[in-house]
Amino acid sequence: MKTVKTVSEAREAVQTMRQEAGKIGFVPTMGYLHEGHLSLVRKSMEECGGTVVSIFVNPMQFGPSEDYARYPRDAARDADLLGKAGVDLLFMPAVEEMYEKKFFTSVEVSELSRRFEGSLRPGHFKGVCTVVCKLFNIVSPDRAYFGWKDAQQLLIIKKMARDLNIPVEIISCPTSREDDGLAISSRNIYIPADRRRDAAALYKGLSKVRDLIEQQGVRNTSVLEEEGKKTIRKYQGIELQYFEIVDPEDLSPVKEINGKVLVLGAVRIDGVRLIDNMLVG
Amino acid sequence: MKTVKTVSEAREAVQTMRQEAGKIGFVPTMGYLHEGHLSLVRKSMEECGGTVVSIFVNPMQFGPSEDYARYPRDAARDADLLGKAGVDLLFMPAVEEMYEKKFFTSVEVSELSRRFEGSLRPGHFKGVCTVVCKLFNIVSPDRAYFGWKDAQQLLIIKKMARDLNIPVEIISCPTSREDDGLAISSRNIYIPADRRRDAAALYKGLSKVRDLIEQQGVRNTSVLEEEGKKTIRKYQGIELQYFEIVDPEDLSPVKEINGKVLVLGAVRIDGVRLIDNMLVG
Repeated sequence: MKTVKTVSEAREAVQTMRQEAGKIGFVPTMGYLHEGHLSLVRKSMEECGGTVVSIFVNPMQFGPSEDYARYPRDAARDADLLGKAGVDLLFMPAVEEMYEKKFFTSVEVSELSRRFEGSLRPGHFKGVCTVVCKLFNIVSPDRAYFGWKDAQQLLIIKKMARDLNIPVEIISCPTSREDDGLAISSRNIYIPADRRRDAAALYKGLSKVRDLIEQQGVRNTSVLEEEGKKTIRKYQGIELQYFEIVDPEDLSPVKEINGKVLVLGAVRIDGVRLIDNMLVG
Repeated sequence: MKTVKTVSEAREAVQTMRQEAGKIGFVPTMGYLHEGHLSLVRKSMEECGGTVVSIFVNPMQFGPSEDYARYPRDAARDADLLGKAGVDLLFMPAVEEMYEKKFFTSVEVSELSRRFEGSLRPGHFKGVCTVVCKLFNIVSPDRAYFGWKDAQQLLIIKKMARDLNIPVEIISCPTSREDDGLAISSRNIYIPADRRRDAAALYKGLSKVRDLIEQQGVRNTSVLEEEGKKTIRKYQGIELQYFEIVDPEDLSPVKEINGKVLVLGAVRIDGVRLIDNMLVG
């Protein structure tokens, strides 16, 4: 695996790779890799002749009171995992390589960014869109792989690529989970050991709604949301931030279940934010 | 000259062209072509093996009270001019081809967009950046040509391409002028015939400042701005909107002339907005 740190090195390496590999697959990450990331990498390697992974903890997507400085990092371990997985190119730029001092440009997807993570983390998706747009322009992949775990992010990036005519296909991959259903996330290391059992609450709430829809045919959204929340509240010390059933295309509210819906939620447990979702129906 | 109307046709035509032409030059326009546009086209044809021109009156860059509906259009004449000039590909998309109903994405360059045209035309540069970003992604040119006439737009697009790592070189070309100095613009047809003589006022003001700097060595910006404005006010019925001397890199105010400066201004004459500028020193 080749590792590069500058934009021009990355461009050059991709250009060389493209001649041999044909299709280029791309997995943008913030590092501290886990099974979720690796499942994206494997999918890319299955589908594309060359796979590029980026590791960049993007300051622009963190709010001033968020965990940018303490976000977990382990470059050596990440590189080792990616090398063993057979990745062709690792792009690990420094912050100064991506953002010059007078950096003024931003990319935004309105509407889809308004609610849920967008309202709880102002500016978050603007930071995500801007850095992903930059990375797409640097790597110019044929396909890029994102996890369903960050469903709102996935929909926003798909919409950005579509609206801006970015010539990349966005591929979505299922959420990887621990044995008890907890969605795998780099931030899970923040969960205190004695709270780990309760951290599955959100997953249990989502599963409850899925079962009510798929096995019992409940169609009333208010009833379903209430049942999901009730399940979550059975766990200790869980602060529920949102829990809703929406249209998986545009995140608009759904009144009655008539086809596929996205159930998505966010909780805080001991100050640690966890998000998760399920496509149902 | 090949003319296409859809994004996919444009992509295909450019791909074919690239194999034979090598470098692709691109001139994005809103049509109703004049000598200014044609000078950009000639420059592209000198420097690149293939030249693409787009004609698209972009609704997103017009304010609700602006002249989108009555903006001058003459597709047949434009196509004729470009064909005779030897352009390879003309891209003329319909509005629906560029903006689907639920179009949510925007690109913005803060700071550079705040003053001058940005403050007088809220949202204008957001519209410009978004459509130019889209066009760059559709045409993927090696070089794109813009006129100095719209100096703020030029600086903003350069900054956008740099910040977003868009792999295109932005080439700036000098403003084309009428015999009396009036900067050529598609909007000049709005000027009533009996006001045409006074429309050169802004150019005369800019020239005055240039002469004071280059021939008399005046260095005090306030003095220079006052002299320029005085010259403009000698003409009849001119409403001065702004007239300033700024840094040509970032449009920041300049106190004393120490090297290259950009003098830029906007006036209204009989309700018609005219902008112009001069690089001096």
